[in-house]
Amino acid sequence: MIGTDDLPIRDELRGMSPYGAPQLDVPVRLNTNENPYPLPEELVARIAERVSEAARTLNRYPDRDAVILRTELARYLTRTTGHEVGPREVWAANGSNEILQQLLQAFGGPGRTAFGVEPSYSMHALIARGTGTGWISGPRREDFTIDTAGAVEMIAERRPHVVFICSPNNPTGTAVDAGTVLALYEAAQAARGGRGALVVIDEAYAEFSHRPSLLPLIEDRPLLVLSRTMSKAFGAAGLRLGYLAAHPAVVDAVQLVRLPYHLSAVTQATALAALEHTDTLLGYVGRLKDERDRIVAELTGMGYEVTPSDANFVQFGRFEGEGGARAVWQRLLDRGVLVRDNGVPGRLRVTTGTPAENDAFLAAMRELTPITAGTPAGTPAKENHR
Amino acid sequence: MIGTDDLPIRDELRGMSPYGAPQLDVPVRLNTNENPYPLPEELVARIAERVSEAARTLNRYPDRDAVILRTELARYLTRTTGHEVGPREVWAANGSNEILQQLLQAFGGPGRTAFGVEPSYSMHALIARGTGTGWISGPRREDFTIDTAGAVEMIAERRPHVVFICSPNNPTGTAVDAGTVLALYEAAQAARGGRGALVVIDEAYAEFSHRPSLLPLIEDRPLLVLSRTMSKAFGAAGLRLGYLAAHPAVVDAVQLVRLPYHLSAVTQATALAALEHTDTLLGYVGRLKDERDRIVAELTGMGYEVTPSDANFVQFGRFEGEGGARAVWQRLLDRGVLVRDNGVPGRLRVTTGTPAENDAFLAAMRELTPITAGTPAGTPAKENHR
Repeated sequence: MIGTDDLPIRDELRGMSPYGAPQLDVPVRLNTNENPYPLPEELVARIAERVSEAARTLNRYPDRDAVILRTELARYLTRTTGHEVGPREVWAANGSNEILQQLLQAFGGPGRTAFGVEPSYSMHALIARGTGTGWISGPRREDFTIDTAGAVEMIAERRPHVVFICSPNNPTGTAVDAGTVLALYEAAQAARGGRGALVVIDEAYAEFSHRPSLLPLIEDRPLLVLSRTMSKAFGAAGLRLGYLAAHPAVVDAVQLVRLPYHLSAVTQATALAALEHTDTLLGYVGRLKDERDRIVAELTGMGYEVTPSDANFVQFGRFEGEGGARAVWQRLLDRGVLVRDNGVPGRLRVTTGTPAENDAFLAAMRELTPITAGTPAGTPAKENHR
Repeated sequence: MIGTDDLPIRDELRGMSPYGAPQLDVPVRLNTNENPYPLPEELVARIAERVSEAARTLNRYPDRDAVILRTELARYLTRTTGHEVGPREVWAANGSNEILQQLLQAFGGPGRTAFGVEPSYSMHALIARGTGTGWISGPRREDFTIDTAGAVEMIAERRPHVVFICSPNNPTGTAVDAGTVLALYEAAQAARGGRGALVVIDEAYAEFSHRPSLLPLIEDRPLLVLSRTMSKAFGAAGLRLGYLAAHPAVVDAVQLVRLPYHLSAVTQATALAALEHTDTLLGYVGRLKDERDRIVAELTGMGYEVTPSDANFVQFGRFEGEGGARAVWQRLLDRGVLVRDNGVPGRLRVTTGTPAENDAFLAAMRELTPITAGTPAGTPAKENHR
């Protein structure tokens, strides 16, 4: 039987397996940071209406530049952040993964490097590899915040062409403050001199944060890019709609590498329908923030170390015993609750679900954890998990 | 004002402009090989139905491996070519452009080269560049067929990692026979020895051909890939659905480089609806083939050199006078007819439209061309175009 490794694939792909969480059919799926609330029926009806309209000219190529969609995304950003952007400063693609890929194709690529502070969204490093961009991993502190001084020093030394900052950070939930962003931005510009370096803030989970968006920082910084998605706050992971906000010259740059007509007419139509229902969808976000805070409080009460979260998920631990986090992951799965093992030693990540789903998760954790509230944080949980 | 060239984009992108035909609003658009027939209303209704269903779980990620869609695409290929393939041998993406990009990411890339016989679909070379793959341009004969001996020799000498064969070829309309494909395939394997080279047959226009698909050639040739699209025969350019058929090991290989969840739930739902209406849509293809043959006959009758076409478009010329093809393109546009200037010297390309659109195009050509039928082919048309 011929396998992939018998084919002339690139050497760096040999022995690899495809990225992606297991798609398991279990009662409580809290593993991929999906929004647990289905779209409201009136939005489903509106999608059908707009897609029907688009389908009537589906024999024609879609608007290659997605101008109407970019206009509405710009309006949404302006309205929710107070920082005004227009369609010339916004670009859209099939998920923020494609946004990041286009940025790396234009500003990274062979002979260039990208820098990210891990653990973070692992696609940053994977898309770098996929575009031939070298990868440099920067330091975090014990509490998962960025080690700013360490990162600045490393940027000065390694001179990356692209810098990724994920805020709130996946999988830790950690928000990054403007001071840290500016320190890394300045360091990156100084390190590369001349034309500078591109700094990408991945704000996929921004709507769930206690803090305001970092969008206003793009003003007067043509090399600062904000990346967003409709997968989380808009409850539309199935839609695959990512977007960026940046100086118009960055938008022009990605158009040099984007595949022509990359964004289908049905995707554009569906996204426009969802944007009409922003207020309803942001209402769900409010509920999820409250539930996220409840999960943090309850897990902390059980004695776990919980990383402060500005996202729709919570990182918790530590699990240092035999099997560590993996064993706890399996025991939760045995109880019908699927969470994510991101490979962060001793930690797991749980997505905020509906109140009932969160109850199920918390009940399963209690079963695994006969610790009483008040146990000092940092106590290894392993003894309680036999 | 800061422009793209002031940013640290890759050197090879400097001074470039984005790929794509002008999207002009004119009465008769025959420039991008779109299918002129809108989807029938019953299919539009079915799309609304299937998309509504998908929208009800849009908060969840789509099926990452698009298994149901790949099953239906495999069924379509089996039914229309007589060569049996299953879902393990089929892969789908956002347009055949993304299929080709994934193939080049896995089998091409930095330090590797791809070979194509130009003029051909210009995205082959552009996607090669976008993935850091070197590009080698092979020879065609005066009649636009592949110079097989010349191509074989060049492959032996340059040893490309990927070979593109476009059949029917865009923009010339030329079909490639199985003998030529096999000669290039054998040459490519021999040249690279060991693990061999990937050979991609781009069959975007296969359904319009007088000849059968080259699909059966993939049997026992794990490095032969067939690329297809729903943009043309299915009248769904706005959908952006491309697919490939190949050995399962090739399908596994592209999964190492594809962005996770690249294909949205609405795209999958819409494509599945269209596949339910295959017979109706192939009925339109039959009409378009007849009209294509009429365009060939009438242009030939006006004294033009017309390249034999197996696609839904026709290449015609020659225009050697001042301004050449560009001037004729403009004069047609002045008459409300938009055709394509692909940069092939002295030639233009016209897409087959509805009978009325084709009448408009042919009438405009007659106005520009007071040649009587029977003028020897090859006579420069320029004298007739003042």
